[in-house]
Amino acid sequence: MYYESFSQIKKMLGQLTTLLDKAEAYAKEKSFEPNLYLGFRLAPDQFALARQVQIACDTAKLGASRLTGKEAPSHADNEQTLDELRARVRAVISYLDGYSEKDFEGSATRTVTQPRWEGKVMTGKDYFLEHVQPNFYFHLSHTYAILRHNGAPVGKRDYLGALSQRMP
Amino acid sequence: MYYESFSQIKKMLGQLTTLLDKAEAYAKEKSFEPNLYLGFRLAPDQFALARQVQIACDTAKLGASRLTGKEAPSHADNEQTLDELRARVRAVISYLDGYSEKDFEGSATRTVTQPRWEGKVMTGKDYFLEHVQPNFYFHLSHTYAILRHNGAPVGKRDYLGALSQRMP
Repeated sequence: MYYESFSQIKKMLGQLTTLLDKAEAYAKEKSFEPNLYLGFRLAPDQFALARQVQIACDTAKLGASRLTGKEAPSHADNEQTLDELRARVRAVISYLDGYSEKDFEGSATRTVTQPRWEGKVMTGKDYFLEHVQPNFYFHLSHTYAILRHNGAPVGKRDYLGALSQRMP
Repeated sequence: MYYESFSQIKKMLGQLTTLLDKAEAYAKEKSFEPNLYLGFRLAPDQFALARQVQIACDTAKLGASRLTGKEAPSHADNEQTLDELRARVRAVISYLDGYSEKDFEGSATRTVTQPRWEGKVMTGKDYFLEHVQPNFYFHLSHTYAILRHNGAPVGKRDYLGALSQRMP
């Protein structure tokens, strides 16, 4: 289940690069600087796009790491361009590519914590359901919302990607 | 797994009513009509808040229904006020309260379809991972984004709700 859920998260990270590609193409078409998108935000006191992408990436990366006990690579949060943001996303996809189903054995009952919880812990199962998934999709959707609010012609299909459909 | 995931979805629907409550209180504080929120949107050609809430509700309701073969109640998409939207959300929570773990036995391998797929099908497992979860969180996060963009003092904790944390 966790392995399949992280496969889905990887797919969504791939869609995130598509969203950024479309925003870049739109900026070029409209003759504005594409990297301006990194600073766009929906409210003055909400994170701008670059931070939304960084947190989506970290939620995926640290989610897998904390559920398995495997080391996660560190990223400096210093991306200044769409190219650098896409490289960050691709680095996380690569990192998740290194996971196998076996890595997640016992994840549901694993004890998970992080510094900001001030000593409190969660089970892996609760952490994944209540924290990783809602946060990952929150920051991914906010990235989409910021792009859409600022003209990028992204649509639900760009967000969802191809579905595993077949004729019966 | 599905049962637990829908418990999480129910929790998030409860948080959605909290988000709407906070927006209403903010509107009253600022002396504007709270129900204006239903028509706010992030882009001229994107769904307004009311539709975002309706789709989040339907994704949850139809997701459970299609994964189990149980009937889902129908809703007319005619909400005009925050009160009516909250009632819609609560109706879906009540509906999901009627599910037990046993209802989801065999859901992963169940064949799922819907009219707009033009005859194509998905397994329950793929449908839940690739369609229900990303869509549910997309429309919930967009509801949050529209509120936040329009001044409502909602924060990440209002979105996530309480986490199942404990001292070790």
